[in-house]
Amino acid sequence: MAHIDLGLDESLLPGITGLLRFRPETALPLNQLAEALLRAPNSLPPGERELIAAYVSGLNHCEFCCSSHSAFAAAQLTEGMTLVDQVRRDLDAAPVSEKLRALLRIAAVVQESGSKVTTALVKAARAEGATDVEIHDTVLIAAAFCMFNRYVDGLGTLVPEDPSAYTEAAQRVVTVGYGSSR
Amino acid sequence: MAHIDLGLDESLLPGITGLLRFRPETALPLNQLAEALLRAPNSLPPGERELIAAYVSGLNHCEFCCSSHSAFAAAQLTEGMTLVDQVRRDLDAAPVSEKLRALLRIAAVVQESGSKVTTALVKAARAEGATDVEIHDTVLIAAAFCMFNRYVDGLGTLVPEDPSAYTEAAQRVVTVGYGSSR
Repeated sequence: MAHIDLGLDESLLPGITGLLRFRPETALPLNQLAEALLRAPNSLPPGERELIAAYVSGLNHCEFCCSSHSAFAAAQLTEGMTLVDQVRRDLDAAPVSEKLRALLRIAAVVQESGSKVTTALVKAARAEGATDVEIHDTVLIAAAFCMFNRYVDGLGTLVPEDPSAYTEAAQRVVTVGYGSSR
Repeated sequence: MAHIDLGLDESLLPGITGLLRFRPETALPLNQLAEALLRAPNSLPPGERELIAAYVSGLNHCEFCCSSHSAFAAAQLTEGMTLVDQVRRDLDAAPVSEKLRALLRIAAVVQESGSKVTTALVKAARAEGATDVEIHDTVLIAAAFCMFNRYVDGLGTLVPEDPSAYTEAAQRVVTVGYGSSR
């Protein structure tokens, strides 16, 4: 049970979904931010952006967000959950492009602290073809999930027991987007 | 100089302000989130909400955000910067209400990890009169500044040398709000 009374059935609205229903005033910009970062037109495919979100959520040990965004990434990547698992287990060895690997390395240090992003890490991403917007969005996706993860866990929300909850949510996100989905 | 080319004069648009200009697609929801959390009608006064933002930004060692939101808090609290400094130096001894102290204690653990928020911390805040919405908003303000701080520092943005930049920004935030201000 969440730390606060959300006034709803948490088993039907687990994780962030109950919080978004509880406080529509903050749900609106939070959903718009997720939509802009993870689904709006971008040179980084949605599956790769969701992979950054899942990776950071894993580093933050946020089970709800990591399971959710792993499912959302898997649904939009040709290699599916196998690749998500490989990245989460061993980024250095995972079969991703060198550009994505360099961006994930930036995301990993942002999870610790913004001040840990070095010129060398940025230069390495740029050498693999990353643009300024891609570097910007990677930092902001990683930073945003440091928020979402703390929001979900800080209010003690319910984590679904049935893993099919995440694959069902993935179908909603892929078809409808954020707003009615998380 | 920022890690990416923002295409603008950073001395005129330091910290987050240059990032918001660089990427208007994400600036819109970020500003709306700040407005909803820090300035929209709420039983927690704007000065107290800005104090939570400043306190968390200090714990994250984000100089731009901490100086900015300290100035924004000071501009809206009767006790001004003296109180901001007292809270940042020694929360246990600072002359704030017991409710605000309990909420700041929750914010401090959210800065570390959402999972560190305990039932006891929430119960203590509730015993001092904190409502569910106030507890929710405290967690989300603290979480949001774990994002803003990483965004600003992760992209290596400029920190103003002249402290008057923060008091001038405070006047804009207090009169106009977030959107054209940070």
